[in-house]
Formats: sequence, C-alpha cells, structure tokens
Amino acid sequence: MNKIEHLGIAVKDLEAASKTYQTLLNTAPYKEEQVESEGVTTLFFKTGESKIELLSATNENSPIAKFIAKRGEGIHHIAFAVDDIEAEIKRLTSEGFQLLNSTPKSGADNKLIAFLHPKSSNGVLVELCQEKPK
Amino acid sequence: MNKIEHLGIAVKDLEAASKTYQTLLNTAPYKEEQVESEGVTTLFFKTGESKIELLSATNENSPIAKFIAKRGEGIHHIAFAVDDIEAEIKRLTSEGFQLLNSTPKSGADNKLIAFLHPKSSNGVLVELCQEKPK
Repeated sequence: MNKIEHLGIAVKDLEAASKTYQTLLNTAPYKEEQVESEGVTTLFFKTGESKIELLSATNENSPIAKFIAKRGEGIHHIAFAVDDIEAEIKRLTSEGFQLLNSTPKSGADNKLIAFLHPKSSNGVLVELCQEKPK
Repeated sequence: MNKIEHLGIAVKDLEAASKTYQTLLNTAPYKEEQVESEGVTTLFFKTGESKIELLSATNENSPIAKFIAKRGEGIHHIAFAVDDIEAEIKRLTSEGFQLLNSTPKSGADNKLIAFLHPKSSNGVLVELCQEKPK
C-alpha cells in the first residue's frame, strides 16, 4: 500500500456537509461525481497527498443509504493507493483476507477499485485503488 | 489542515490486529506507546505521509473499551496535522465547531492534540495534531 488514497465519509445532506468540510479543511471541494452503479454522489477535497470523499446516497438501495440507516453518518471506508491492484488482490487473498471483489471494478475519480470484507480487517471497510491506465 | 496525520482504529486484541495490519499494509509497525491518561496502548504503521494507529484499551473505562462495546471494532477517529493547534482551535470555534478540548493536551507520538465533537462533523471524530515544539 503506497499511501491513504482517500477516506470516505457517509453523509445525509451533501450540500450541508460540503460547507462543513470546506470550513473544517479550509479548502474548497475540487470535484463532484456520480457513481450510478453504487447509487452515490461523491464530492472530493484534497488534504496533503490524500483526499476526503463525501458520499451521499441517490436512492434508498444505495450502500450509503443502508450504512446511514444502520450506523448513522460517519467514516464509511478507507482507501489505499496501490500500483497493481490485481497483484494486491492476489497477495491479500493468499494471505487469507476476504475480498468483496475478486476482480477490480470501475470507481469514482478514474480508479480501478476492490473492497475487502470488514471482518478481515477489524471492522474497517478497506478499498484498494489503482489509477486507471491511460 | 496540512494532511491526514493518522487514522485511529479501535481493536480488541492488539497483537492479533498488529499481525493483520502488518500483512495488509505490507510493513511492520514502527512504534508502540502507552497513553495512560486515555487508557490505551497504541501501535503505529507508516503509509505514505500518514500513519495507521491501532488503539486497544488497557482498562474498562477507556474510551476505546466503550467505543468497542457500543459499535464494535473499527475506525475510531481521523487526525489532521496542523501547524498551530491553538490558532486552529480558535478558528474552528469561531466557525461554530464544538471542540472537546478548548486547550491542547498531550497525545501519543510527541503531539499536542485536541478533538472536535463528532456532531460538528457528520459523525466523524476529528483530532487536530501538532508536533510538540522541541
């Protein structure tokens, strides 16, 4: 894992949360993006070499809607940058981690992504992130 | 906020979690430290310019013991590095954020720290961190 690529925070009201995090981080968001397959709208802020990603649900079946209904707003996942996501999936699977995606899928912000099951990592939903090849 | 200084993860069994995160992050922990005032043992891993901090309780009254009893293991807080923690406390208070510490206190890893109430930041426990002056 090269670095924390981003931290995903589940919020109810993206517009209100955007103002809160703009003030907290003292920087404006630089990108808003819909990920239709996940039923989310995402909003990104830069902080050092990492990003804060606010996530709001666009429908009731979104994983973010279900997360908030169960646990309330808060940190949803942590994403680590990797150079070769397929090699990392293979390495972690062989080490006994349970991957939720055995092959990478397309995520926000031009990334190939895969999630680990939180039970593999002490209740933490971990995402692997590789920049898509150009 | 300059960067993500660290991400704090509450775990039950520090030794087992240490092995898990050593494998996940593909790097060994570089420091273990007791913070008696908080009733925790901390273990740090480097990832890029940030750190992963595993937190385990040393007694039943520890905030970490209470967190795990209520929510289970998982991400406990996110810490941002700041240059001047007193100025940041003043700025955020004036912006309407509720600080849990109106003056900085001593934390792990040679830091001055202060926490924001999670209700100020969409359910996220935010820590401000300044390297202690030498």
